[in-house]
Amino acid sequence: MAATMSDVAKLAGVSVKTVSNVVNDYPYIREGTRARVLDSIQKLGYQINTTARGLRTGRTSLISLAVPELKLPYFAELADSVIAEAEQVGLTVLIEQTNSDRDREIAVLRDPRRQLVDGVIFSPLALGQDDRHLLDVDFPLVVLGERIFAAPADHVTMQNVDAASAATQHLLGLGRRRIAMVGGHRGERVGSAALREAGYREALEAAGIAVDPALIGESGLWHRETGARTIATMLDAGTDLDAVFALNDALAIGVLRELHTRGIRVPQDVAVIGFDDVEDARFTYPSLSSVSPGRAQIARSAVALLHRRIVEQVAPAEHETIMAEFEVVPRESTLGLPAGRT
Amino acid sequence: MAATMSDVAKLAGVSVKTVSNVVNDYPYIREGTRARVLDSIQKLGYQINTTARGLRTGRTSLISLAVPELKLPYFAELADSVIAEAEQVGLTVLIEQTNSDRDREIAVLRDPRRQLVDGVIFSPLALGQDDRHLLDVDFPLVVLGERIFAAPADHVTMQNVDAASAATQHLLGLGRRRIAMVGGHRGERVGSAALREAGYREALEAAGIAVDPALIGESGLWHRETGARTIATMLDAGTDLDAVFALNDALAIGVLRELHTRGIRVPQDVAVIGFDDVEDARFTYPSLSSVSPGRAQIARSAVALLHRRIVEQVAPAEHETIMAEFEVVPRESTLGLPAGRT
Repeated sequence: MAATMSDVAKLAGVSVKTVSNVVNDYPYIREGTRARVLDSIQKLGYQINTTARGLRTGRTSLISLAVPELKLPYFAELADSVIAEAEQVGLTVLIEQTNSDRDREIAVLRDPRRQLVDGVIFSPLALGQDDRHLLDVDFPLVVLGERIFAAPADHVTMQNVDAASAATQHLLGLGRRRIAMVGGHRGERVGSAALREAGYREALEAAGIAVDPALIGESGLWHRETGARTIATMLDAGTDLDAVFALNDALAIGVLRELHTRGIRVPQDVAVIGFDDVEDARFTYPSLSSVSPGRAQIARSAVALLHRRIVEQVAPAEHETIMAEFEVVPRESTLGLPAGRT
Repeated sequence: MAATMSDVAKLAGVSVKTVSNVVNDYPYIREGTRARVLDSIQKLGYQINTTARGLRTGRTSLISLAVPELKLPYFAELADSVIAEAEQVGLTVLIEQTNSDRDREIAVLRDPRRQLVDGVIFSPLALGQDDRHLLDVDFPLVVLGERIFAAPADHVTMQNVDAASAATQHLLGLGRRRIAMVGGHRGERVGSAALREAGYREALEAAGIAVDPALIGESGLWHRETGARTIATMLDAGTDLDAVFALNDALAIGVLRELHTRGIRVPQDVAVIGFDDVEDARFTYPSLSSVSPGRAQIARSAVALLHRRIVEQVAPAEHETIMAEFEVVPRESTLGLPAGRT
């Protein structure tokens, strides 16, 4: 039977962890201990798992980026930015799509194939605050998004509440008072939907406007199609509105399309702002106002944090949280078209 | 010094290839030979590379999908379809973006990290016909696209010429005669641009219409922005046109935007058709007519061919080529808006 790491540990008179450290070339191991472990490895003919070892020494130079869905332009563009940043530090990115499936998200953290890469940038959408312990892993990990806070991992996130508040304030500043929100997830207390709704409410309340439940449109997945359906339902119910804050740009593009179909003019009748500032936003008609959540900074920070973990190997006790800078990007869907165009 | 596979071969009196076959658990090795190799491995303390071995026995169940750019919706949607198909046969997909960079495309085929996956689905955009020999690899490989034909690999492609001809015929059938093409790559003889232009020319010539070079718009990358710029250049030059065939939907969306900006009505003044039938096409205004190139079939065929190679292990001498079925999908940008809407 093949010798195991445990056999090596016994023979060398050290813990399995120490054997692992020697195998993985960790620094700070006393030379005598290292020699004893190597000697035992040789005596027992123990075969080092070269994949795991390649990992620990950073030898694969591969990192994984796990995102919910590449069809959502935000994640495709985020992947593009992460790839560019990773290239700067000599890392190649393998992208995995989880489809927001809980089991797949857990596999991102638990699958033994994880050892093929030097580290993981993970944007969960199914896991939540109660799964925080799952992020306590033995490989370099950076978490993106707003599903899980205060986890034992570096974290890069958006300023969701403030950014959503700023988007709503932009509409208020244009004199809009019946501002619908599209993309709500009723009952959720974590995640982008909850935080962006909080920002929307905050801005309205600060302006002395009571939140009208009829103006909160619930959507499941944040796709173009659900955006179109959500606004259609509100309009069919006769809801009076003069603006829409869609919680992402895909929803907003669906809203624009539905308003067009109904002959409702944007922004004369209804102003529309999205969130994410994807490339699409510059090419819709009218072009889509949005909030840039700092995608470039998110990608840069995530890669920098991960790279630091990979290079420094031993994880510092402190985990960093970085909140990206956001910016409202006003375009025709709120400011209006050039004179003469409808 | 650690023993190499070559040392094992010498001691066992066999070729390196035979050692490799034993290590990788290939069938059809005589028991005496196998025993001799295993004995030599043990004597020399040769350490099997478990990653490479995991590959050969299909143990990683990972496949790689290498595409030029995920920001192009076609590739994001293709990735989505490939992931869904792969899941059906128990394979997990890792996605790599090559940025159409020649070195990265070569790395897809040559990087030793390739051994981490059971096989590769590869959509090249920088490599061309002269690189055909690079596709002669020792792992399961399926090639997508129209850059390289008759390579020593399974191939899944679109019917580019016929599909482009059908798109042009659709415009001709609506009475359009001054049909611009957006997305040309002058001088290229391989690839989607050349093939789709051939289809465009074929349809015009069959209709007895001479191809007007002023109507062939050159674009580099097939992005929204280049589409907008290309049509702007043609219009600025005073080119008379009543329709546009954009060689992909991203270009077409840029064209739509530019026409809107100039107050040119679609389709009354200029009808527009794209190519790819991405999800976006249903949400533009007007909605975008396009050609569906059979993305679902392409994904399904690619995964099926790759899976067959992985399971059967030894590659059959014959390589398959599958051409997906296409379909013209007419929408408002050619057929017109519902009555009463402009």
